[in-house]
Amino acid sequence: MHSPGDIELALRRSPLFCDVATEVIQAISLETSFRTYSANEYLFHAGATADYLYVLMEGAVKMTAGPLGGRESVIELMQPVDCFLMAAVLSAKPYLLSAQAVGEVEVLTIPAELLRGVVSTEPQLALTMIASLANQYRQMVRHVKDLRLRTAVQRLGIYLIGLADKQGGSKTLSLPFVKRLIAARLNMTPENMSRAIVALRDEGVDVIDDEVHLRDIDALRRFCQVDTLLDELDEEFFVLTER
Amino acid sequence: MHSPGDIELALRRSPLFCDVATEVIQAISLETSFRTYSANEYLFHAGATADYLYVLMEGAVKMTAGPLGGRESVIELMQPVDCFLMAAVLSAKPYLLSAQAVGEVEVLTIPAELLRGVVSTEPQLALTMIASLANQYRQMVRHVKDLRLRTAVQRLGIYLIGLADKQGGSKTLSLPFVKRLIAARLNMTPENMSRAIVALRDEGVDVIDDEVHLRDIDALRRFCQVDTLLDELDEEFFVLTER
Repeated sequence: MHSPGDIELALRRSPLFCDVATEVIQAISLETSFRTYSANEYLFHAGATADYLYVLMEGAVKMTAGPLGGRESVIELMQPVDCFLMAAVLSAKPYLLSAQAVGEVEVLTIPAELLRGVVSTEPQLALTMIASLANQYRQMVRHVKDLRLRTAVQRLGIYLIGLADKQGGSKTLSLPFVKRLIAARLNMTPENMSRAIVALRDEGVDVIDDEVHLRDIDALRRFCQVDTLLDELDEEFFVLTER
Repeated sequence: MHSPGDIELALRRSPLFCDVATEVIQAISLETSFRTYSANEYLFHAGATADYLYVLMEGAVKMTAGPLGGRESVIELMQPVDCFLMAAVLSAKPYLLSAQAVGEVEVLTIPAELLRGVVSTEPQLALTMIASLANQYRQMVRHVKDLRLRTAVQRLGIYLIGLADKQGGSKTLSLPFVKRLIAARLNMTPENMSRAIVALRDEGVDVIDDEVHLRDIDALRRFCQVDTLLDELDEEFFVLTER
């Protein structure tokens, strides 16, 4: 059993709530719950009313669109402490994507109506939400751009460069998801992914099981035509300050 | 020469500013200007500092990504009174897309710093911005979903259904842009577009020059596998109310 204090501490791990005033986070904690899901279980389906904002505490969740004509598409892979789906919750619209547990998953569920109430009374939280939505919008624009302008091999390269940035610029990376899932996120079949891994050897990338070694990240950046201004994957949060 | 009163009236045409308090809109008007651009002129390039929020008053603007490997990609087509690029302006980040005038264009330019200041002092405007960003994020998710799950012919069908909704459910539509531009937005070559127009005849769609006649919109919806909850193109703005 989790106490409201545990929930408060867990909420503070999210960039959305780390700076929120104590009385506000306490009010949110009282109505927020921990929930667990087993592998492959759906947290919600696209089209359902957005009753909760989810904060992922443990495990991985895939956000999918479809099935349409029998096909399903992995749009995003979530890791702790990602939140989903903010846009649906704040605009009181149905979820546009489904959320499925990859393995065992633990989340916090914040009631949508409570969150909308708090955002409308706490201007600083509203400004944090603006920063988060702007960030998510920009990630989605990059997703569209990658799909339309980059080859599958370049998309894999960009993904690895993003991982290296997240893992502190390290040259040896561990893949955070199984290859099949990463392939699906990058709109590739597992076979395409295997071929892309072979192709990237010439660009200084060695993949052995779940470990990646980047021999020459600058060469990889050139090959993927990375523009540091436009392709920065892990954007810092810019929150306006209430005046 | 435009007076601040003209600018105020023009700003009020945008859903973002229609409900803003008089003194706020007057403060914005004093620093906002009308600007005109000729056909093909760039309003700004991707990577530039986001100095202004643009409100399109006259003409059409295409938002492009690239060029990358010689290719450029039309990500969005703007019409009056669309705003761009909100996410860059509110998060003080570089523009991710370039904006190019299609024909003669008139815009309002609102200084980014001024807007960030007003948003951080006016909670109701912050809530409107949340609604706008959430809406834009959801449109971009639909864009990704269409690219990944739908055929070119279905994407054109969805686009026409969206137009019909915008034009009040009419069965006879006029295309708002030349076909070449619509093709680029839908990630098709002009040749693909011509073939898609022929293919849609069997689904009850006749295209003659810039006019489209939808003989059986329900059949078209079925063919495109439209889900009214998930594919609603012209979402209504849901703005939280300040409490």
